[in-house]
Parts: sequence; structure tokens; C-alpha cells
Amino acid sequence: MPDLTSPTSVRPPDAAAHAAAAARLADLATPPGALGRLGDLACWIAATQGEVPPRPVENVRAVVLAGDHGVVGSGVSAFPSAVTPAMVRTFASGRAGVSVLAAQHGVSLRVLDLGVDDDLDGLPDEVRAFKVRRGCGSIDVEDALTPEETTRAIEHGRTIAAQEIASGAQLLVAGDMGIGNTTPSAALVAASLGLPGAEVVGRGTGIDDAGLARKAEVVQTALDRAGERVADPVDRLTALGSADLAATVGFLVAAAEAGVPVLLDGLISVACALTADDLAPGAAAWFAAGHRSTEPAQGFALEKLGLEPLLDVGMRLGEGSGAVAAVPLVRSAALLLRDVALLSEVLGG
Amino acid sequence: MPDLTSPTSVRPPDAAAHAAAAARLADLATPPGALGRLGDLACWIAATQGEVPPRPVENVRAVVLAGDHGVVGSGVSAFPSAVTPAMVRTFASGRAGVSVLAAQHGVSLRVLDLGVDDDLDGLPDEVRAFKVRRGCGSIDVEDALTPEETTRAIEHGRTIAAQEIASGAQLLVAGDMGIGNTTPSAALVAASLGLPGAEVVGRGTGIDDAGLARKAEVVQTALDRAGERVADPVDRLTALGSADLAATVGFLVAAAEAGVPVLLDGLISVACALTADDLAPGAAAWFAAGHRSTEPAQGFALEKLGLEPLLDVGMRLGEGSGAVAAVPLVRSAALLLRDVALLSEVLGG
Repeated sequence: MPDLTSPTSVRPPDAAAHAAAAARLADLATPPGALGRLGDLACWIAATQGEVPPRPVENVRAVVLAGDHGVVGSGVSAFPSAVTPAMVRTFASGRAGVSVLAAQHGVSLRVLDLGVDDDLDGLPDEVRAFKVRRGCGSIDVEDALTPEETTRAIEHGRTIAAQEIASGAQLLVAGDMGIGNTTPSAALVAASLGLPGAEVVGRGTGIDDAGLARKAEVVQTALDRAGERVADPVDRLTALGSADLAATVGFLVAAAEAGVPVLLDGLISVACALTADDLAPGAAAWFAAGHRSTEPAQGFALEKLGLEPLLDVGMRLGEGSGAVAAVPLVRSAALLLRDVALLSEVLGG
Repeated sequence: MPDLTSPTSVRPPDAAAHAAAAARLADLATPPGALGRLGDLACWIAATQGEVPPRPVENVRAVVLAGDHGVVGSGVSAFPSAVTPAMVRTFASGRAGVSVLAAQHGVSLRVLDLGVDDDLDGLPDEVRAFKVRRGCGSIDVEDALTPEETTRAIEHGRTIAAQEIASGAQLLVAGDMGIGNTTPSAALVAASLGLPGAEVVGRGTGIDDAGLARKAEVVQTALDRAGERVADPVDRLTALGSADLAATVGFLVAAAEAGVPVLLDGLISVACALTADDLAPGAAAWFAAGHRSTEPAQGFALEKLGLEPLLDVGMRLGEGSGAVAAVPLVRSAALLLRDVALLSEVLGG
């Protein structure tokens, strides 16, 4: 098992390919800059592939990592934890939001139970193959996980990424399902950036003003309780995270190490990306942002990571849905740089 | 021929279907409002179809109407008019930006010459079937079209829309190609909203500061020259438009009259939508906005029409490309409202 507390080895995307892609972009039969951010995205894809023009981004693979959060007992969510297993069953039946979007876009989708507080009887074994535990500690009063559980969850995330990469993933998405998941995610962002609880919390699935105040207090209490340990990203996950979040971090680190680009989703995904970049510096160069959520902590984390989301349509569904909704734009970017005529061809013809 | 100067008959989208769609949206197994603007879009689609849940938006049909603009002679564009026929040939070969996006999304695409200042020898006859004239008058010194040409262009646009609707279009896109096209479009917006030239002009395909100042002056001169005639939307097109813009207005009016929704593109498309709504009040209820362009006049027109674009990624390619790039989001909205489980099913299961 690798030493997860030491910086892992992430090479940057191919700078020469990026430069060649930018040169090709400038030579297209379009006015300079007319593709806007799709042009920048196309150059990034080329750099992640090391190839100009980039190959079409056909094989896109998403996973939804599910888990429950003890902190729901402290009144931070509009829904009870019992909704988590019900939603895992909805994924399994193909009728969750992200399932519909993944089917539309030909994106492979797996839902995996990392820490749902339910045995999920009757679901296929593969859904439960990576289960670390049922639920997790309420972060305002205790650590979310034991150090051993954190390590195991991170390793599971790495294994899940390796499986998707072995299946030919050209682009990965990690979504999350779990009532209460915006609270530990906000805490991870606050811990990474040194922000107070009151600045990072949002309404999640729809809490009222009293719930929002409670959530801010819970996050601050958790930060105070964790103290100096949050300086280390693995200890941070033990204190403030959960099995699904730790697995997401492992997934993101493994993708970056393997040089496979990732399209991030909302707060949970971006909070884990921030943690992954702390754990494996440079990892963020392999990430693009799919959509802007309505959670304030996502904005802070995106800014730190230097990422600007492709979509900003007020989605806050989670599940990886914002990322999967943005997949066509990533594909468009690669196709435009590949297939649009060069100006020399147009004028020469 | 109908009397084009009198208000045409546009019925509104189905209010009962909109209400039923909103009720279904609230019953989905998602937190309230979690689909953001995709939820609103889904309700609009249902209202345009008069059906809940909405049918999948499979048959999407785009046309690119091409034409030249005499005003290019006044130094308002970074490119010469000779680029227009070269780009029409690029569309015909399937290698323009919008061609690539249309192929990606399975969107039918036709390029049609309404007023290109070239005979386009060698291209298929159908490309030239709706040609009104070569180029048009320079709007700062003369009318763009004769009244007869305007009427003919509007009728051509209606016919083109009718053809696409007869081919089963569930959603229409009208793009435009023509060097100089942002100048008459900005003039149309200024005329409709009573704004001065300096407020509406943008850099188009990339003019410098001196060009921008010239463009503002040209638009203002054109507005002053046209005077009171701009109160009438058809006279406005004669004075300030072009064959491709007048045809786009006819296309949009015909779509609204037939009750077929349209996804608008950038400035040209939205300027024509504003004009279409002046000509046939209520037409705008059948339009959604695909993307926000970098042209200021588009923003003014969108605000007047009460439309918020789906994409905001800095695109300014024209050709209908921003609308076609947004087609997957329209399809997603309809599919989500149709296929996501209801909360009652999730909790009952």
C-alpha cells in the first residue's frame, strides 16, 4: 500500500500538445477567440491526451459514490438519511436524475455504496463491493472515520478509478449521493482554505434559515474540534469527511496520476478535488469544472483551483448530474478543434 | 400573400400543460428546485408541446441563412465580404463550426443563400433557391432593401420554416452567416429599443477600438437616416436589415405561428427575435435563448424579451453555433421531467 500521506506523483498535462492545440485553434476558419471557453477547453483536452488534434471524447465514465453522514442527526439537512438508500435503489433502476442524463449522453454509470447506513438488501453485490462501513461519525462531536477506514476508503476510490480507466475511460466523473453530504464537504473546503463555518455553508437540498444557522455552527464546531489535524489532507478526511468523500478523493488522485481528465460536479466533487490537490499537488491540472452549484463553498474551492464551470444553470441536484449535463460541451470542444476547417483550406478552396 | 404589416396570429404556449408540468416537476424524486433552470425549461417545452410529460426533443432542425451587408464597405468588420461565400462553401462541405456541432448532436442543418454577394457557382441549386439579391445597401447611406425585397425575404423565411416543420421539427434553430451582420443587427436592436448606436455596438469578429467607434457612428447614422420609419418592424428591416435578417424574422414568426419552439443563437438571432415579436406580438413566448454572446446588443434584446441564455461560455462564432451547442440541455430538460422517478415511487418502493 502506498504511503498516502506523502505527496503522490502527478505529472502535468502535455505542455507541447497544449501549445500545438492553441496554434491549431488560431488557424481554424473562425474569428480569433470565437469559440470562447470551448477553445480553451479543447486545448486542455489535447494536453491531457498529448495529442493534436484531440481524439473524440467518446468513452466517458461516471461513478456515484454513496454514503451517509452522522451529522444529519444534528439537523443540517432538509431530508432524513433514509432517503439515501431509497435513492441508491433509484440509481439502480436507472431513474435518478444523473441516470437519465447519462443514458442521454451515452455515459457509463455505476452507483457504489461506500457508507450508506443501510444494508441495501436485494441490490446486486457489485453495488456493495466497496462498502467501508454503515454511516459515519457526526463530525461536530467525533471523527467521521477511523484512520484505517479513511485509508481503506481512499484505496477503494483508487481501485474504482483504476477499473474505469481499464474500461477505456477518456473522461471521468465522480458524483456523490448521501443526505447531509454538503455539510462535511463545506467543512473540508473551510479546513483547506482557512475559512469560518458561516462563510462556507449553503442550503443543500433546501434547509430554512434556522437550519442554515445550525449548519454553520455544526461546521464551525467540527473545525474547532479537528483543530490542527486538518493541515494534513488524510487526517482532514478522518476528522471531517466520510467514506464516500474519502473514496472520491482517492478516485480523483488516481485519475490525475494516471493522466485521465476528470469533469467535476458540484460542491462535493469540488471539495474532494481541493482535498485531492492538497494530497497530490498538481492533481487539479487534470480537472475541469462541469457546473456551478448554488453552494457558496463550491465557489471558494473553484476559485482556489483556478477553475471556471462550463454550466451555470442553478442546478443543485448532486449525483454527478451537473458534470454529466456538461459532457456534450467537452465533446464539442474536442470535435471543434478536430473537425472545423482550417482558414488556409477555406481561403485556398 | 398575408398582410405582413398587421399583427399576425400567435397563440401562447399551453398554460394548462405548463401548470401540469410544474406540478410534475415538484413531484420528482429531486429536492425542490434542484434542476435549476432545466426545470423551468422542461415546463416551457411541455407548454410548447401541450403535453405532460413532454415528448423527447429528437427532431431538431437548424438553418443558416447567409447574406452580405453593404455596410462592410464603411469599415465596420475585421473581415472582407469575400469571406462570406468562402464560409458558405465550408458549410456545404460540413466543416464549419456549426456543422461539426450539428453532426455531434444529430441536428439537421441546411445553409441557404439569401443575399450573398457572390453567385456561389458550383454549389447545389437548393442552396440558392431562396436568393433575394446579391448583398444589400449600406444602411448608413441607403436602405438595405426595397420594400418588395423585404417582403420577399420574409416570405422566404416563412417558407423555409414551413419546410422544416413539415420535416417534423420539434425545435428549430436559425443561424446566420454574413460578414458585417452584427452591424445591422445592432441597428435593429437600437431601433426597437430606442437606444443610441454607441450603446449597442460590439466588436463582432474582432474589430479594434477605431473600428468600434466607426461602427457606432455607422449605426447612429443609419438610425438617423431611417428616422420614424423604424416604428414599423417591416419598414425597419427595409431600412436597416438585409435579406438574411428579414428572412430570419419571417422564419421566427412562422415558427411561433405554427407553435414550434425555437432556440435562439447570438446577436443576429436575438435581434431578429425582437423584431419578430414586434411584428407578431407574443412570438417571443415560443423562443428560448441558447447562449449569451459577447455583443452588448444581444444582452439588451434578451432582457426585453425576458430570456436568460442557457450557455455563457464566451462564444461569438455565429452560424447558429451557440444555439446548437445548447441543444443537449433542451433535450436533457425534457428527458428529466419525463424519465426521473416520482418521489412517491421512490418512497413507495
